[in-house]
Amino acid sequence: MKLVTFEQGGKVAAGYIDGDDIVICAEGPGAKDAVRRLVEGGSDALAAWREVGAGGGARTALETARLLAPIPEPRRDLFCVGKNYYAHANEFHSSGFDSSGKEAVPTAPIIFTKATTSIVGPGDAVRGELDPTGSVDYEGELGVVIGRRAFRVSKADAYDHVFGYVVVNDVTSRELQRRHNQWVIGKGVDTFCPMGPWIATADEIGDVGAMELETLINGETRQKARVADLIFDIPTLIETMSATMTLLPGDIIATGTPEGVGIGFKPPKYLAKGDRMTVTITGLGELSNTIV
Amino acid sequence: MKLVTFEQGGKVAAGYIDGDDIVICAEGPGAKDAVRRLVEGGSDALAAWREVGAGGGARTALETARLLAPIPEPRRDLFCVGKNYYAHANEFHSSGFDSSGKEAVPTAPIIFTKATTSIVGPGDAVRGELDPTGSVDYEGELGVVIGRRAFRVSKADAYDHVFGYVVVNDVTSRELQRRHNQWVIGKGVDTFCPMGPWIATADEIGDVGAMELETLINGETRQKARVADLIFDIPTLIETMSATMTLLPGDIIATGTPEGVGIGFKPPKYLAKGDRMTVTITGLGELSNTIV
Repeated sequence: MKLVTFEQGGKVAAGYIDGDDIVICAEGPGAKDAVRRLVEGGSDALAAWREVGAGGGARTALETARLLAPIPEPRRDLFCVGKNYYAHANEFHSSGFDSSGKEAVPTAPIIFTKATTSIVGPGDAVRGELDPTGSVDYEGELGVVIGRRAFRVSKADAYDHVFGYVVVNDVTSRELQRRHNQWVIGKGVDTFCPMGPWIATADEIGDVGAMELETLINGETRQKARVADLIFDIPTLIETMSATMTLLPGDIIATGTPEGVGIGFKPPKYLAKGDRMTVTITGLGELSNTIV
Repeated sequence: MKLVTFEQGGKVAAGYIDGDDIVICAEGPGAKDAVRRLVEGGSDALAAWREVGAGGGARTALETARLLAPIPEPRRDLFCVGKNYYAHANEFHSSGFDSSGKEAVPTAPIIFTKATTSIVGPGDAVRGELDPTGSVDYEGELGVVIGRRAFRVSKADAYDHVFGYVVVNDVTSRELQRRHNQWVIGKGVDTFCPMGPWIATADEIGDVGAMELETLINGETRQKARVADLIFDIPTLIETMSATMTLLPGDIIATGTPEGVGIGFKPPKYLAKGDRMTVTITGLGELSNTIV
């Protein structure tokens, strides 16, 4: 299933995509949290949504709906992984913006967070003007949505705890990232976390490693990679993080960005007003946002 | 007011301290979130709680209640500040565990987060056994609770956005902190964020700078400082963070720890099973937790 949260006629609703339609499974107060609660509810909750469609429930045309981030307000901040593709680890390290140690390629996953208040949906404006340093950069990433509580989960069992996948653009102020050393401020600027258009449940995705990610800026391909190229793959991330901390249903882990970010160029190609970022991942749709 | 969340007879409730009693303002489902909702509700919500006490509402003896963290499940992760007292910045920098850059004293606030799942209450066990590296350390800190949404708030107006204060112990695995470079893993171990015993509303605290913080390990004083000694004071933190990101009611900012942490000693004095940590701050009570 492809799960969406959307706005239509000024009201928020949630459901899943069926052909050219959205089957509406939640409306009214609380609809904004419906996908998060669905994730927490597990297979029973998913079955209940499926029955809405099977039972001839209300539908709306996908193209008339304004999609929001599928989970507009997660229970807590997004977990993100730094320097998790080899070529990107090298380009970031040699850019002069890397405050994360002496090694280009990390020996252990670098985990940071991105504030809930930075999340926006597909098509929403990214307020580059909020970065006083004018060093806004894009980072197309695969986001993993945790489905089952995970504590001390082995690599072998890790995928049992994955609910699904979503496209994330980890927009970053490079100067703020460097200046504040830990990355919460540089990564957490309001509107700097586009996410969507939908969460695809894990059963929709065959071979996760085979998924291809591509980021285009104003139509020009800047990033292109396969998820198989991750330094620390999804099972390793879940095993490492859950070794000491509990991951909750609805937690999102943005798994890192491949080579081709703006600071990989000399001089850096920072984003400017009007620039359009588009991130696509196999099976997860297209996430486009414009800098204002 | 001193706001508490507590358990009695297996049920969670919330209220405020009045002499030797707790005035019970919330019981039943949702009581665990009552203090968070009170913060979001602002002065009207506070007035409603005060009326419960004035109107002869139910009370319970403070000493029979098991206090929990006053906000056991915040809306998102805690914000924390690294290296925010001069003497501590120097001791941490010279310890060999500082992955936060070349300078001992930061030129801009270092902001990281601590996972919601790491929060425990006064008296709760801190599971040192979860740290496979055996490098558990304490960090007594003043936590600031945001009351009003803050975006682009100046230093001059910053205190208008503060709801109150709480004691936080930013327990840390030093080896995990260093190994993963960004601090989410080293700081986010389950049970590694004792918080409490209460949130004191801002009006209870006169001169914030005059508040004294003390940390004792097994009764021996290890940390002692005045809040006035912060490198980046509370208005500066709120101005800096809110310059680019929105702070929400109920957000908690742990403002940093003073000199005297375990890795400040040579060799480091790590915490071991049975060690008792006690953090006290003027007006905010005593937060004691034992390592298991």
